[in-house]
Order: sequence, then C-alpha cells, then structure tokens
Amino acid sequence: MNKQIILTQRPVGMPKEETWNLQSSEVPACPEGHVLIQNHYISLDPAMRGWMNNTKSYIPPVEIGDVMRAGTIGKVVESKHPKYQIGDVVSGWGGVQQYSLTSGQGYYKVDTSLAPMPTYIGTLGMPGMTAYFGILEVGKIKEGDTVLISGAAGAVGSVAGQIAKIKGCKVIGIAGGPEKCKYLIDELGFDGAIDYKNESVIRKIKEHAPKGIDVYFDNVGGDILDAALARIRMNARIVICGAISQYNNTTAIQGPSNYLSLLVNRGTMQGMVVMDYAKDYGKAAMEMGGWMMQGKLKSREDIYEGIENFYPTFQRLFTGEKKGKLVLKVI
Amino acid sequence: MNKQIILTQRPVGMPKEETWNLQSSEVPACPEGHVLIQNHYISLDPAMRGWMNNTKSYIPPVEIGDVMRAGTIGKVVESKHPKYQIGDVVSGWGGVQQYSLTSGQGYYKVDTSLAPMPTYIGTLGMPGMTAYFGILEVGKIKEGDTVLISGAAGAVGSVAGQIAKIKGCKVIGIAGGPEKCKYLIDELGFDGAIDYKNESVIRKIKEHAPKGIDVYFDNVGGDILDAALARIRMNARIVICGAISQYNNTTAIQGPSNYLSLLVNRGTMQGMVVMDYAKDYGKAAMEMGGWMMQGKLKSREDIYEGIENFYPTFQRLFTGEKKGKLVLKVI
Repeated sequence: MNKQIILTQRPVGMPKEETWNLQSSEVPACPEGHVLIQNHYISLDPAMRGWMNNTKSYIPPVEIGDVMRAGTIGKVVESKHPKYQIGDVVSGWGGVQQYSLTSGQGYYKVDTSLAPMPTYIGTLGMPGMTAYFGILEVGKIKEGDTVLISGAAGAVGSVAGQIAKIKGCKVIGIAGGPEKCKYLIDELGFDGAIDYKNESVIRKIKEHAPKGIDVYFDNVGGDILDAALARIRMNARIVICGAISQYNNTTAIQGPSNYLSLLVNRGTMQGMVVMDYAKDYGKAAMEMGGWMMQGKLKSREDIYEGIENFYPTFQRLFTGEKKGKLVLKVI
Repeated sequence: MNKQIILTQRPVGMPKEETWNLQSSEVPACPEGHVLIQNHYISLDPAMRGWMNNTKSYIPPVEIGDVMRAGTIGKVVESKHPKYQIGDVVSGWGGVQQYSLTSGQGYYKVDTSLAPMPTYIGTLGMPGMTAYFGILEVGKIKEGDTVLISGAAGAVGSVAGQIAKIKGCKVIGIAGGPEKCKYLIDELGFDGAIDYKNESVIRKIKEHAPKGIDVYFDNVGGDILDAALARIRMNARIVICGAISQYNNTTAIQGPSNYLSLLVNRGTMQGMVVMDYAKDYGKAAMEMGGWMMQGKLKSREDIYEGIENFYPTFQRLFTGEKKGKLVLKVI
C-alpha cells in the first residue's frame, strides 16, 4: 500500500492537524513511459505553506484532495522508461507519499556515493540551490562585503552564509536561541550571530556591523527585515528569498516600514525563485559538492521518521525546533 | 534688504505656518572669491519636507535658524569670482530668500535664450533630471514596456511619463482629479490615466494594463505602491523616487504589504537620489532640451508670487492644488 498525505482543507493561519489526512491507497501500476519510485525522504520546506493558499503565485496551488506537494528522494522500483533503471536514486517532486509514479519530468538521478540521500534534498537540493543563486546572482556578493542572513541556521540560510564566507565576506547570521547561534559561529565559521529571541536585532546589527551591511539575505520578513533596512549601506542589495514570519498571518502581510531606506541608500530589493536557475543546477551542485569535500561547506539535516509524523514534523518549520534541514524519512 | 524664510521649528506631521519665520536682514557684502545672486524663482519640491526631519538621510537636515533649503534660479548682481559676471543667470541651492551669497559650489550657468528661467528649475532642473535618470537608468525602460507612473501630473512624474512615451512605451499615469487626468491624456499623450481620488487604482491598473506592468515609477508610496505591486509582471522594475503620501505621517511609514510580489514575479525595487547622476546632468539637459524643441517634451510650471506667500504655496505640494512644477517668484 501507498501511504499518502492529502490536503483536505485550505488552512487559515497556521495549518492544523485536520489540514491533511493520511490515507492508504494501492501502489499504482507503472504504465509505458513511466517509472515508479519508492520515496525514502521527503523535504519539508517553508515554501510548502505558500503552496496551500489559493492565490496566484509562482506555481499553482496544491488542490484540495491532492497529495501534498514536496520535494523527495527515492529509488526506482519499477521502470518502463528508457532513461531509468531499477535501483536508480532519483530526486524530484514526489509529494508526501511513499510511492510516486512519474514520466520523469522534473526528476534527476543523483550519485549517493558522493553524498547521502538527505543531502540531495538539502544542501545539494532546492534549499542549497536557492542559497547559491540567491547569494551569488541576486545578492552579487563580493570579497569584503558585510553580509547579513536571517534564518541563518536553516537549510537555505546556513548555505548562503557559508558561501559568503567562502567568497571572503564578513557574515552575520540571525537565528533563534543560543544553541543555533553557537552553531553558526563554532561550526559554520560565521563572524557574528544574533539571537532574535533574546537580543535586540537592530542594536546587535549595529554592534556586529558598525559601518552597515552590503547584502541582506532575507528568509523571514517582518520586524527583522525592517531592522536590516535600517542598517544598510550605500548600494546595498536585499535578496527577498522568503518571509517565514508572515506565512501564517491571518491579517495582511507586514510590509517593510523602512523601505525608504532603499531611496536614502540607493538600495535594491529583489525577489527570487530558485526554479529560474534550473539550467545551472548541475554546475552549482558540482561547485558545492567540491566545497563539501574540502570541508568548506557543511550540511546538517534533522531527520524525523514515519509519514504518520508529517504534521508534528511540519510544525517544526515554524516553531524553529529543528537543527538544520528538516527531512522526513517515509520508508 | 534680503527677505528670508527661516526654519524655526521641526514640524511633526504637516508643517504649519509657525514652522517658518519670514525675516529681513541686510543684503550681505560680497567677499573675494564669491558671488552675490538675486534669486528670481524658488523651486518648491516634496523633498523639502524630508530635509526638515532631524534624521540620517542622503543630505544633512536643515538646521533650526537656517534659511530653508531650496533650489533657485537668479541673476548675478555682484561678482568677485573669476567664473561669473554680473548678469549671468545661474541655478543652484540658493534657499528660500531673495539674495544668496555663494562661492559657486553647486551652481551652474544657464542660457535663458533656450528656455525661460522657471523651466531650468523644473524640466531642465532637478525634477527633470530625477525623471530622466530614474526612468532610464533605474527603470531601464525599453520599447514596448508598460509603464505606470504615480504623481504623474507633477514635476517629476510628467517628465518621466513623457520620456517613456518617447522611448516607445505604453504609459499610464496616476493623478488626483479629472482635470489632471485629462491633462495627461490630451496634453502629454499618455495612453491612460487613473484618478486616484475618484477611481479604484488597483482595478483601473488592471483595465489599462491587463497583462500587468513592467516598470512602476513611484512618487507617492502608501496604498498606490501596494496596488502597483499587485499588478507587476515578471522581472518588473519599481523605481522608488519618493513617497509623498507618507512624508507628513506622524505614525510609522506604511510599508508595502504586497512586497512579496517581488518574490513571486522576480521583481526589483530600487531607490534613487538624483545627485548621484550629477556628472551626466549636462548630457541629459541637452537631450531633454532637444525633445522640448521638437515638441515631444512639454513643461508646465505653476508660478506663485511673493516670498511672503511661501507657506500657502508650499502647502500646495501636499494638497495637490497645483498644475505642474510648483515655483515661487520672489522678485
């Protein structure tokens, strides 16, 4: 049988247990030109919250009654597709379920002799790609820049910050709690860390970056985006990658009151969606894989088990109770 | 005697009559290396409101007791400076007063055989330069773009819109009242006009630009910025030139709630300050002067008289009761 997480209602605010339903259905037969994949790991990402809203966005919403959309990695168990063999490890958009049937669109093979499966949905998957293209192409970091990153202990932020370090920047991370901050400094080599749950973000930015910041990589929005705007330098670049603080709002999104700092400082605020860079994923994965082998880029996954634990695991995205990339093992 | 408008207190919200004081002082003697200018026209601009706040910005604030800062145009009446002769017409930062003494810094000579004095503090002055560099360098307009402009009947917006027309764009202007909207269409050749005082801006943008907008040139901020953000196309550019709706706020600036549209649409929001383009003013003035002579670029000034009428004239910036560039004749 194939256990699946089905979207049963559109959440208002923070999703609840009844937002989804766990159902079992027959493992589908594999028609010609298709491949059946047994999913091993499901990627849990803040973006999933946005996909549940019935609004125009960069991809269509998940429909009520559909399997919840998610990135996955797993093994081909049946193939009627010339490109895939049984045993191939593939990553794609399999959804929160134990088996996926696909014509191969959006899937690609990975080599688990180089990195373990969860890394391919983390640092070498969408979050890592988001960090790579966001900080390099949109943030346009250069040696000597002072770079501020929110959600810095998360799957995207931790990679963005490490890439900035590799490129010779001074990097300050914002994260929740002393343990995550210690991780940023001791493990990832950040130059400074700000605990937004216990410290004044705006004051601490000033302390760590007395001359202001050149690049701000934003994963959170809200008050932290405003604090960053208040401390940008001339010609600063702000990368709008996400706004996790706002995703479960039941009222209007909090717009950045300090946006006129863009005028005073001739700053640029630019949004990004990782899918635009798909043609360069291979090159990026190669470069990041090289950094990982040299020990310059560290990857950390926080792996939970059992598809029936999808809901409490999903909640950790928003409570912050996780260490690194959040992954659910479903086999 | 030299009549001067002196800043006497920092306004909270909309400036009041007692924010300034009209005083008379002796016309200063002209020391070596200096030039004495009799100011003919004072430029009244929304940016003046920002210069009165005691906050870090792109230039230092006007201090209490100082002559109110303003752009001016006038004639040299005494010169102990090798570069200037009596009778030269010069534009610069003379302030709201009848005579200015200067070493020449920030001043430049203009040729009134080509355009009348008020045009040199309007379309061929700071507002025109702001429009020129804002729409071309920051907005990066190209033929076929759909361009939306707020404050479109004002000194900056009217020029930005006309330049976009010259460059082959479809141009929609937002202005207050049917008369200004008629002016945009009938006189300036805009493709569409939205009367924000009597129409739903967001609905009208959709009507005029069913496929969305490529460039938004923002002079106003607030709800209109949010409406524009809701209707941007992929890779849109938003030029943050000003935010007149917010300048007299006594509470926090209204940040754009729809800023995540930048993410969905991979948009860019960039701030600008005209002074950064000073080295290219000459080239821009030449090109704009050419367009004016060909009848492609129209200039309209709304001229009031008497330095003692500074306050009621200044108010028109914010009530919108003006037709084109607001100018005060002080001689």
